[in-house]
Amino acid sequence: MKNTFGQSVCVTLFGESHGPETGAVIDGLAPGIPVDEAFIAFRLTLRRPAGKTSTARREEDRFRIVSGVFEGKTTGAPIAILIPNEDARSRDYARGPLRPGHADYTAHEKYHGFEDFRGGGHFSGRLTAALTAAGAIAISALSRRGVALGTHIARCAGVDDAPFSDYAADIARLNALPFAVLDEARGAAMREAIEAAAEQGDSVGGVLETAVLNLPAGVGEPWFDTVEGVLAHALFSIPAVKGVEFGAGFALADMKGSVANDPFRLEGGRVVTSSNNNGGVNGGIANGMPVVFRCAVKPTPSIGREQRTVNLASGREETISVTGRHDPCVVHRARAVVDSVVALALCDLLAQRFGTDWLGGDGA
Amino acid sequence: MKNTFGQSVCVTLFGESHGPETGAVIDGLAPGIPVDEAFIAFRLTLRRPAGKTSTARREEDRFRIVSGVFEGKTTGAPIAILIPNEDARSRDYARGPLRPGHADYTAHEKYHGFEDFRGGGHFSGRLTAALTAAGAIAISALSRRGVALGTHIARCAGVDDAPFSDYAADIARLNALPFAVLDEARGAAMREAIEAAAEQGDSVGGVLETAVLNLPAGVGEPWFDTVEGVLAHALFSIPAVKGVEFGAGFALADMKGSVANDPFRLEGGRVVTSSNNNGGVNGGIANGMPVVFRCAVKPTPSIGREQRTVNLASGREETISVTGRHDPCVVHRARAVVDSVVALALCDLLAQRFGTDWLGGDGA
Amino acid sequence: MKNTFGQSVCVTLFGESHGPETGAVIDGLAPGIPVDEAFIAFRLTLRRPAGKTSTARREEDRFRIVSGVFEGKTTGAPIAILIPNEDARSRDYARGPLRPGHADYTAHEKYHGFEDFRGGGHFSGRLTAALTAAGAIAISALSRRGVALGTHIARCAGVDDAPFSDYAADIARLNALPFAVLDEARGAAMREAIEAAAEQGDSVGGVLETAVLNLPAGVGEPWFDTVEGVLAHALFSIPAVKGVEFGAGFALADMKGSVANDPFRLEGGRVVTSSNNNGGVNGGIANGMPVVFRCAVKPTPSIGREQRTVNLASGREETISVTGRHDPCVVHRARAVVDSVVALALCDLLAQRFGTDWLGGDGA
Amino acid sequence: MKNTFGQSVCVTLFGESHGPETGAVIDGLAPGIPVDEAFIAFRLTLRRPAGKTSTARREEDRFRIVSGVFEGKTTGAPIAILIPNEDARSRDYARGPLRPGHADYTAHEKYHGFEDFRGGGHFSGRLTAALTAAGAIAISALSRRGVALGTHIARCAGVDDAPFSDYAADIARLNALPFAVLDEARGAAMREAIEAAAEQGDSVGGVLETAVLNLPAGVGEPWFDTVEGVLAHALFSIPAVKGVEFGAGFALADMKGSVANDPFRLEGGRVVTSSNNNGGVNGGIANGMPVVFRCAVKPTPSIGREQRTVNLASGREETISVTGRHDPCVVHRARAVVDSVVALALCDLLAQRFGTDWLGGDGA
Repeated sequence: MKNTFGQSVCVTLFGESHGPETGAVIDGLAPGIPVDEAFIAFRLTLRRPAGKTSTARREEDRFRIVSGVFEGKTTGAPIAILIPNEDARSRDYARGPLRPGHADYTAHEKYHGFEDFRGGGHFSGRLTAALTAAGAIAISALSRRGVALGTHIARCAGVDDAPFSDYAADIARLNALPFAVLDEARGAAMREAIEAAAEQGDSVGGVLETAVLNLPAGVGEPWFDTVEGVLAHALFSIPAVKGVEFGAGFALADMKGSVANDPFRLEGGRVVTSSNNNGGVNGGIANGMPVVFRCAVKPTPSIGREQRTVNLASGREETISVTGRHDPCVVHRARAVVDSVVALALCDLLAQRFGTDWLGGDGA
Repeated sequence: MKNTFGQSVCVTLFGESHGPETGAVIDGLAPGIPVDEAFIAFRLTLRRPAGKTSTARREEDRFRIVSGVFEGKTTGAPIAILIPNEDARSRDYARGPLRPGHADYTAHEKYHGFEDFRGGGHFSGRLTAALTAAGAIAISALSRRGVALGTHIARCAGVDDAPFSDYAADIARLNALPFAVLDEARGAAMREAIEAAAEQGDSVGGVLETAVLNLPAGVGEPWFDTVEGVLAHALFSIPAVKGVEFGAGFALADMKGSVANDPFRLEGGRVVTSSNNNGGVNGGIANGMPVVFRCAVKPTPSIGREQRTVNLASGREETISVTGRHDPCVVHRARAVVDSVVALALCDLLAQRFGTDWLGGDGA
Repeated sequence: MKNTFGQSVCVTLFGESHGPETGAVIDGLAPGIPVDEAFIAFRLTLRRPAGKTSTARREEDRFRIVSGVFEGKTTGAPIAILIPNEDARSRDYARGPLRPGHADYTAHEKYHGFEDFRGGGHFSGRLTAALTAAGAIAISALSRRGVALGTHIARCAGVDDAPFSDYAADIARLNALPFAVLDEARGAAMREAIEAAAEQGDSVGGVLETAVLNLPAGVGEPWFDTVEGVLAHALFSIPAVKGVEFGAGFALADMKGSVANDPFRLEGGRVVTSSNNNGGVNGGIANGMPVVFRCAVKPTPSIGREQRTVNLASGREETISVTGRHDPCVVHRARAVVDSVVALALCDLLAQRFGTDWLGGDGA
Repeated sequence: MKNTFGQSVCVTLFGESHGPETGAVIDGLAPGIPVDEAFIAFRLTLRRPAGKTSTARREEDRFRIVSGVFEGKTTGAPIAILIPNEDARSRDYARGPLRPGHADYTAHEKYHGFEDFRGGGHFSGRLTAALTAAGAIAISALSRRGVALGTHIARCAGVDDAPFSDYAADIARLNALPFAVLDEARGAAMREAIEAAAEQGDSVGGVLETAVLNLPAGVGEPWFDTVEGVLAHALFSIPAVKGVEFGAGFALADMKGSVANDPFRLEGGRVVTSSNNNGGVNGGIANGMPVVFRCAVKPTPSIGREQRTVNLASGREETISVTGRHDPCVVHRARAVVDSVVALALCDLLAQRFGTDWLGGDGA
């Protein structure tokens, strides 16, 4: 299945950094969901490089939807979204020394040298624009059933953000922010640290924390298609994500059961838990509490500082200083991609459980 | 797909804690792979409860293979393995208050009360016996191509193990140990801490660290079926796993790019990396270095200490003290399950890449 | 996926003709569906060899359900059904000359000689017993939503049955008959012709015609997962099925559009068609009319008459006269298998469309 | 999965008759396969309407490949092909009475009125252009391994073509012909009959017969992913295909086993069969003989003659005479689509069996 993810709601991704267009196809979404192009365009701005904390490459992300939407609503047929590559400068790239931390070497091993190597080709972060556009539609679909999600930069360049305090309000606020932090002062400190690293020709990483609200209890398809497994599968497809943890995650390893367990109680006749160390998932199935997880985002591998590497053409060891336009940090941009793959994966789990029409909501 | 995992090599899992038999079906494995029942039996002992650190429930795990093996070798047809439940005591269980941290509530929401609730039913850790047996065959299959893997208890009950020092030798040693630590003194300290928690009616968690050797560079099917995504998907199906990280994982969030990147160099004409912060995976594809990852294992939710909860039958809040035979810690037992799901997932990725015969090796 | 069929409701098949047990696992069926073991046993009698028209091999098909059913109802977890091979006589079989029309040669090419060759191994019609048992549960599930299906022997050994005249009544009647014909006199003529062929050491084939009632309009997932495509995929897995046609099928090739098209009309406010040349499917989606299709069943390949063949062991051409216990005709037995794979495939399409709970019906 | 077909090599289809663009994404094809745009353009001419036997709608099918091809060869990444709709005249279409034999009613039931109804929307034969383009690349891929296929109009408008006499030569000849018949005189008679029907405002159907050469023995993944099942699944996605039979197909129903069985013999040390009533497939697996099958193609449902129908808007019965530009016959055009879906499905089966690189051949 490779470049297609999902069983009932599926997304297929294609394109290369320096090809004419990249794109995504979303299949299986319910008919009757309003598609708001302005909202898609806004979501794209959230992952777009901006300011000193990002690459100088400018992409307007002028997407177009060529199928699956009629009179402003989903039809139930596949939605194909295309995004032209307007500012690709192939002269910046030539087959040269392997860039450490990138897919240059592994793509070469997998594709035997036939891969489009320019700018990372099919492995470029550029493809996350199409994922983000597709995710915007999935986010809209979820909202019709009251499922909301948002992500903040929990940590970046060694600076911690404030924790979530009021999920619903925090999510609403985060989703309007280009640099998604709950405490703007800490956000300023993060940006300062990012710029300091950039000045040294270096890059930084961080941790993104996401909360999903109102996912109905009973969603998830264990043993294997657990909420955690399906979301993690999707999240690890984001370049730079190297770890995923749910609820208290790795901190659970040091807790006692008497602390880690989330006691059940009744709230207005509804079963809830007093704590949420399990991140809203028990036995792989949503329990109705917020689904909370964190992703480790590694520092951008493209850095100006000199690194040792191998040049496959010459068969020799060399040094490399990655030129071109690069991000000293992708954590803030990756946040839009995290929301997107999660929204797509949740649409899939919901459609599996409740059928292909359910997300269409009352209007369908 | 729910209880089936994989695309080319698939495993299907079935059974309940208190049903007559649990089992697994492995499909798509190459013909001609020797199946050693003694090795399967041995692997089952690694997950079997033993000593004071485990439940008093005794299972001999008398498995039988009813298909797919002929004259001691795989035929290429599905291999069905059945394990009877010999020591199920249903009288220990009755539909009662929801056990915190377990799937009781979520299963009820998903299955509307029709679930077999006895002993956790289909969500019982008991099913990992069948997974372990299936995984033993997958481990054998991988070994024919030189792919080796092993897991140690990197941390348990607050005690750290020594790190891997020599992967090949460490893996060989770990795979013979019932309590998989690299430093036996620290293992003794862990067991002491587990027993101390047990005496307080409590439980502990930990972290498992796994290394996979000789996975060929070029394996993995991005964007979506990355090595990380596929392994994480499988790992999160293990009850109690709440976090998965590759290479330096969450620690990468605090590194600079100049440190996190793994420089390439040549070693005997082969491209290798000097460090392995990316855990053997670049761009979702194996780079030929050891694939290294860690799983967070939460403390066993079944504890003797009193916890607050809800009883769905009475519709009231109650307290619960989980009786019956339970583990104060499952970290050491989960290790065999981690190896198993990883081996099955790797067989799948390898068969996708190299075809259905490849794992049969020279003998096929 | 090989031995697993389906996306939301899946069936996995395993076993060999001369292994200890064969079986099937049904996953994804809604919780709360009553499982009637007597009904399963009855369905198994419909495919069981009986009388002079069948093999002398006697199988009691003493199935047992080892998971997924609790207190007489489906739990929503996988249902594993096992059927022991009680009367396998391995001495009848040795690796010898390739049996024409069988999978001996192709299995050898695919599995490199590691296949269990005894009695056709994994390719034996024996595995259809497990499919029939699984199908019985699917038939029960469909009946909760009013979906009924039945198959008659439209033609066998050159003798035609009467056509369907009243679908609902005919289906009810057929489902009680061991030899499923609408006109018993023609059935007697068929049996006579089968016995005549058997006396000559030969075998005969036929055509099975199936009708499905009350499949809701709107079911089917084109482009690729059309009702026709999904059913045909499942039907061609039945050994001996070599053709599948829907509605007027191949006869449509000779019709004019003005005749072939099924005009729409209103019947009690509901849209129906006046004719049903399209077999209840337009554009791959059910239109609410009876879904009608026919399967071509080839004559049993195992015959006593001498045939030319090749012996792979000797590397020479030989003649073969297939001894052992064989059917001179499998058309009447295949009927139960057709119903089963169709019921399983329809459960899958319905669960995809309406969600995993829908088939549970009011009771769920 | 809906609009995606395949497991290892997958095709995803999108677009509507009157949308801006239709397209297909092929994923999983081996790297290093030459992509010849002239060949794709030529294959598109084979399905393009032409002359009196086809609709007057003119499409230049100016496709463009926007990903997955670099320096003239496949890269191994997804290949997206887009085809603009240049000559869509939406004024010809308005939501009106249901066209008999079309998907108007079933799409309405499935998509609740949100479907793009113009010109059949997503169910339009227009989408087969993208399938044909994708299939052209698959045909090229197969040719690198010597697998060749071709289809002739075995019967159309009541006129039979000559049968295959020399598969390799016939296939080569057919693949160059716009109207694929083995006997040109009979082809002329077919066209005459088509035009006669057209003059009466009516349409005709036919039978397509396909042969695949050099498919390696051992390909196919039973029980469920048989060669027959997988090809039939794909073939039934072609609008108008209502029957599929392999080898002697429905004629097998009237044969004796002694005639139907294909005796094995040796030919230059290779096992072959003397006859090919099983159409190159035994037990669902290719036996190395030509894979031969036939598809029943119904007459085009769009006809000028008056038909009875229902208008959902008015809720009343009406009559309809389908205006606009339509084909009196699609049999000759469907032939290119048959070749395409078969080539894509075979690439998938081959990649499953031999791995993702195999089709790349020596060049990869």
